[in-house]
Amino acid sequence: MQLPTPVYKPAFNITRASHLVSRVSDLEASRAFYCELLGLVVSDEDSSTLWLRGLEEACHHSLVLKKGEPAVERIGLRVLTEEDLDLLEAHFRAAGFPTAWVEIPHQGRTLHTTDPAGTPLEFCATMETRPRLFAQADAYHGACALRLDHFQIVTPKVRESLDFYNGMGFRLSEYVTKDGSLEMVFLQRKGNPHDIVFANREGPRLHHCAYQVPETHHLMHVCDLFVCRDQEGQVEFGPARHFSPGLARFLYLRDPDGHRVELFPSHYHTIDIEEEPVRWEAPGFKAGGWIVPPDRWWNDTMAFAETGR
Amino acid sequence: MQLPTPVYKPAFNITRASHLVSRVSDLEASRAFYCELLGLVVSDEDSSTLWLRGLEEACHHSLVLKKGEPAVERIGLRVLTEEDLDLLEAHFRAAGFPTAWVEIPHQGRTLHTTDPAGTPLEFCATMETRPRLFAQADAYHGACALRLDHFQIVTPKVRESLDFYNGMGFRLSEYVTKDGSLEMVFLQRKGNPHDIVFANREGPRLHHCAYQVPETHHLMHVCDLFVCRDQEGQVEFGPARHFSPGLARFLYLRDPDGHRVELFPSHYHTIDIEEEPVRWEAPGFKAGGWIVPPDRWWNDTMAFAETGR
Amino acid sequence: MQLPTPVYKPAFNITRASHLVSRVSDLEASRAFYCELLGLVVSDEDSSTLWLRGLEEACHHSLVLKKGEPAVERIGLRVLTEEDLDLLEAHFRAAGFPTAWVEIPHQGRTLHTTDPAGTPLEFCATMETRPRLFAQADAYHGACALRLDHFQIVTPKVRESLDFYNGMGFRLSEYVTKDGSLEMVFLQRKGNPHDIVFANREGPRLHHCAYQVPETHHLMHVCDLFVCRDQEGQVEFGPARHFSPGLARFLYLRDPDGHRVELFPSHYHTIDIEEEPVRWEAPGFKAGGWIVPPDRWWNDTMAFAETGR
Amino acid sequence: MQLPTPVYKPAFNITRASHLVSRVSDLEASRAFYCELLGLVVSDEDSSTLWLRGLEEACHHSLVLKKGEPAVERIGLRVLTEEDLDLLEAHFRAAGFPTAWVEIPHQGRTLHTTDPAGTPLEFCATMETRPRLFAQADAYHGACALRLDHFQIVTPKVRESLDFYNGMGFRLSEYVTKDGSLEMVFLQRKGNPHDIVFANREGPRLHHCAYQVPETHHLMHVCDLFVCRDQEGQVEFGPARHFSPGLARFLYLRDPDGHRVELFPSHYHTIDIEEEPVRWEAPGFKAGGWIVPPDRWWNDTMAFAETGR
Repeated sequence: MQLPTPVYKPAFNITRASHLVSRVSDLEASRAFYCELLGLVVSDEDSSTLWLRGLEEACHHSLVLKKGEPAVERIGLRVLTEEDLDLLEAHFRAAGFPTAWVEIPHQGRTLHTTDPAGTPLEFCATMETRPRLFAQADAYHGACALRLDHFQIVTPKVRESLDFYNGMGFRLSEYVTKDGSLEMVFLQRKGNPHDIVFANREGPRLHHCAYQVPETHHLMHVCDLFVCRDQEGQVEFGPARHFSPGLARFLYLRDPDGHRVELFPSHYHTIDIEEEPVRWEAPGFKAGGWIVPPDRWWNDTMAFAETGR
Repeated sequence: MQLPTPVYKPAFNITRASHLVSRVSDLEASRAFYCELLGLVVSDEDSSTLWLRGLEEACHHSLVLKKGEPAVERIGLRVLTEEDLDLLEAHFRAAGFPTAWVEIPHQGRTLHTTDPAGTPLEFCATMETRPRLFAQADAYHGACALRLDHFQIVTPKVRESLDFYNGMGFRLSEYVTKDGSLEMVFLQRKGNPHDIVFANREGPRLHHCAYQVPETHHLMHVCDLFVCRDQEGQVEFGPARHFSPGLARFLYLRDPDGHRVELFPSHYHTIDIEEEPVRWEAPGFKAGGWIVPPDRWWNDTMAFAETGR
Repeated sequence: MQLPTPVYKPAFNITRASHLVSRVSDLEASRAFYCELLGLVVSDEDSSTLWLRGLEEACHHSLVLKKGEPAVERIGLRVLTEEDLDLLEAHFRAAGFPTAWVEIPHQGRTLHTTDPAGTPLEFCATMETRPRLFAQADAYHGACALRLDHFQIVTPKVRESLDFYNGMGFRLSEYVTKDGSLEMVFLQRKGNPHDIVFANREGPRLHHCAYQVPETHHLMHVCDLFVCRDQEGQVEFGPARHFSPGLARFLYLRDPDGHRVELFPSHYHTIDIEEEPVRWEAPGFKAGGWIVPPDRWWNDTMAFAETGR
Repeated sequence: MQLPTPVYKPAFNITRASHLVSRVSDLEASRAFYCELLGLVVSDEDSSTLWLRGLEEACHHSLVLKKGEPAVERIGLRVLTEEDLDLLEAHFRAAGFPTAWVEIPHQGRTLHTTDPAGTPLEFCATMETRPRLFAQADAYHGACALRLDHFQIVTPKVRESLDFYNGMGFRLSEYVTKDGSLEMVFLQRKGNPHDIVFANREGPRLHHCAYQVPETHHLMHVCDLFVCRDQEGQVEFGPARHFSPGLARFLYLRDPDGHRVELFPSHYHTIDIEEEPVRWEAPGFKAGGWIVPPDRWWNDTMAFAETGR
C-alpha cells in the first residue's frame, strides 16, 4: 500500500496542535509532575484548574488540568484567524458533525466539535499571551519542557481519520501498514512530522501528548529526578530513539493519574510537497531503537470524558 | 515605533527559506569547511559545482557552491505548488520586477527575480529528493548541520523590504529600531523566528545564512575542530546566546572565502497571530549575551555577483 | 554489617586499573566494535593482536585483543615504579601465590600472578607512550571512549578479596550486603569509586571492564550507531543511572564475542579517609534507576582462559 | 628546557587540593554567586561565614567565605592521615618555614604554614562529612559545580615552587617556558593535571580556583544565567577550550568581589611515571582556543590578606 499525498487547499487554515484539556484527581500532585519535573510553568490557576505552558510558549496554555475523574476532555487545535474559525465551523456542520460556540477562559472565541473518530475537539484562533521564557535561564528547571508538539489518538477509524484530516489540509508525513491494513497515520500542519497521529486500537482514546525539550541530556536528567523522588514507576519507556515514524529521541512518562506524556528533543522539518510520506510495514521496525517497548506503552490509553470509552 | 502585524493572505504560498547559491574560489577547501567541519553531505557534484544538504534535509540541496570569484549568486525560496509559482511570477511582474523562467539542475521549474532591496531571488516548488540522514548516526560528523534555516540581507531599504515581504505573506517576528528608524526586520513563513532578515546597511549584500545543529555541544565541538586544523581564525563569534532577536544560542563561522555561516541549536515557534512582533531598541541589548560582537561580525558582508556591490 | 575502613600502607604503590587482555574470535569484528563504535584507537597491531587505547590515554594500551577462543586472559594493574614491582612480587610470593616475570610487548618488566579469587593478574610499572588525543577533536568518533576505569570480577571469595586487596592498599568505597553476607565490594586506588570490583557469583570470571566517555549524549549517540548497524542486540542495559554503588550514568554493551563493556560519563572522587564506605543492602536499591536490569546483565560473565571456568 | 620528572617519595602523603578560604564584602551577594549561579551548596553558615561544598563533595567545605575586606586567606590542602600531618609539620619546620597548629571549625587538626612563594597554606587530614549530592538530581542547579579541583598562584618564584612541591611529592604534568625561563608549572597529587599551578607574575597572589562541572552544556547555561541577571560582566573568558596546559574546556567567572573561579567539565588522568611532563613554549599556543584571552584574565589577581600584596 502506497498512500497518495494530495495537496488540499481548504478555505480555512488550521495551523497547529494547540492544547490539551484533561481531568486529574489531585491538582497538587499534577502540579508537581508537570511543573517541578517536566518544567512547565503556571500561567493561571484557580481552585479547580491549572493553566500551564511550556518555557517557549507565548500562548496562555498548552495544558489545562481540571480537578475531576481522570479523563481527557478535549484536544485543542489552532486556526489562524477568526474568519478561519467560521469557515471551519461551516465545514464541520456540512460534514454532519455537531458544532457549538463556547466561552473558554483565556481563549478567544472557541468552537467545540467532533471528528470521525469521535475525538472531542476544540478550535480557537487566539489566546491571551504570556511572556516567552525561552531565554530566561532562571526559569529552566526539570526537563525544561518547551512547547506542546502533538497528540496521538487511538481509534479503529484510521483511514477515515486520514481522509477527513487530509480534507482539512493536514498532510501525511509517515504511516504504518500491517498486512495491507493502515495502522497509523502521522498528520501535520506546522511543518514537522506530526500535529496529530491516529493509531489503530479501540477508541477514541488518547495515547499521549508530546512536549519538546531542549536537548538529550534533559531526558536523562528528568529520569534522575523521578528516581530521586521514588517515582521511577512513572518513567515508562526511554530515553531511546524511535527507529519508527518520527525518528525522534524520546522519553515517555506517566502522570500521577496515568496520562502519558512524551518528551523529545528534536524533530525534522517537512514542508515540501515532493516529499513522499514514509511507509513503515509492521512488525519489523524498531519502535524503541535498542529497547523493546513495554506492553503498557502499547496498550494503556486514556478515555475521553465525553465518550467514556 | 510599534509596527503593525497585518495578516496578509496572498494568492500564493511561499513556504520557507530553501537554498543559497554562492561562488567560491576553491571547491575542495569549501568541501572541507562545509562537509568535514559543518557536517553537510554532498548530494551531487561535478567539476565546477557542489550540491550540499543538511543531515535532516530530504531536498536535494540547501547550498550550491560554484567555482568562481567569491560572491553570492542567489537566495532560494520555496513555494508550495507549481500553481503558486505562476501566481508569484505574476505578482513580481505586476510589481515591476523582472522575472525569468530558468532551468536549474535538480530543481523543478524555477523563477528568477529580484526584490525591492535588489536581492537576486530564485523560487521553485520542487526539487529532487534524497534520503534524510536525520537518524543515520553513522552520517553524523563535524557540527552535524541539520537544515538551512534563514538568510540575513543588508540593505538600506529595510522598510520597503518589510512591506514587500509582508505583502507576500511573510510575518514579522521581531524588529530593531534605533532613534525612530527601522534597523532590522525578522520575517518568517515557516513558523519559527525567521526565514529572511533585512538589516540596515549599504547593500544588497549577504550577512549570513544559518544552519540548525542538534545540540549546544555541537557548537563547542566544531570550534575544537577548527583549532585542531589551525583554522581558529574562521571562528568569528560565539558560542554564546543572542539576547537580541531570535534569542538563539549561536556560532558564526567564516568559510575559506569569507562567506559567513551561523550555526544554532534551537529556535522558538511563532505561528499564532495574537503574538505581537517583539521590538528591540538599539543600542542597549546584548547581541552576544556575555560577549561583545567583534567589529567584523557587524561590518563584513558578501556581495551578490549580479549587483557587484 | 558495617565494614571497617583500614588505612593500609603497604611498602609498594599500586596506582590504578591499567589494561585488559582478552581473546576474541574475529579481530576485524572486534575492531569495528571497539574502534568505530566505542571510539578507541589502535596503538599497534599485528596479524593476531590489536593494542587499543582511549582518546585520553598516553599509555600504549588499555585493551589488548588477541585472536583466539573468546575468554579473558588477564587483568592488568599498574604500580608506580620498578621498585614497587619488586616489592609486590615479594608480597605475592610471601602470600603463597605463584609469580613469574614475563616479557610483554610495549610494556616494561611485567609480573604475572594470581589473587585469592584466582584472577589472573598482570602488573607493570611502565608502558610505551603514545600521544594523548584528549583535545584532538578530529580523533573523536563513536562513543569517544576516553580511558579505562575499572574491572568487575565475579567470585564467591568476596570477603577474601576485600581483605587481600585492602592489604595491598586498596580502599573500599562502597559495598553491598544481603542478609548478612557480603555481596559486592568496590575497591579503589586512583581516587574514584573503583579500580576493581568483586561480586558474589561462581568464578573467577569477568563481568565487565568500564571506559569513561566525555558526556551523557555520547551514550545515546553510540546506541543510535548500534541500531543503524542492526547491532542493537549488543546494547544490553541503559543508558540510565545506577542508583546503586558508583551512582554513575551508564551503558552496558556486549562485544561480538559477548565480552561486556560499560561506558559511563562521570564518577565522583573519593580520596579522604574520613569518608565511610557506603553500604547498600540488597535487594531494595535501584541498580538501573528507572529501568530494571535484564537477567543477562546479572548472569552472563566471561571465563578466564587460564582457569576455564 | 626539558624539565626532569623526579619521583620523590616523601615520608608524608599530601593527597589533593582541598579548600579555599577567602574574604568577601557581602555574604549574600557571594551566596547568590556561588550557590544560585555556580551551584554550590551550604554545609553551614553563621553571621560572618559561609561553608560551601560542591554537589559531589563529601567533605564539609571546599570554599569558606568570610565577611571582610576582599582577599584570600589561605589555600587548603589535604594529607591522608594525622601521622602525615605531623611529618609534614616537621618537614616545613626543617625547611625554615613557620608552622602553627590551629583550631578550625569543621576540620580536624589543622596546620598553618607558608611555602617558598609566600602562599599562606593550611593542611588537615580530616573534615566533617556531609552527604554527597552527586546523584541527587533535585539538588542540581546553576552550573552544578561538583568539586574543587585546583588553584593557580602567581609568584616570581616559579622554579623554587616547582622544586619545593616536587620535594613534597607533587608531580609536574605540564609547564610553560618562554625564552629559556620557566613561566608556569602545573603540579598534581590526585592524578589529574593539577592541584596547584604557579605562574610567573608579581606575587604571591591568587589567579583562580577551579571547580569541575558535569558537562559542557552547564558552561553555556550558567552564562545565560549571568546575562538574565544583568551580571554578564562577571563572565570573563569562555566557554572555550584551552589549547594550552590542561587542554580543558573552561569558563572563567568573577565573583562580586573580583575573585576568579574557573569552571571546567573534564580533565585527563595522569598517574604513570613514564609520562613526560608536557612543555609549551610561549607565546605561540592558543590559551583560549578560538578566542583571545582578555587582558584582565592575564593581569587581575587577588591578594592574600596575610601578605597584602
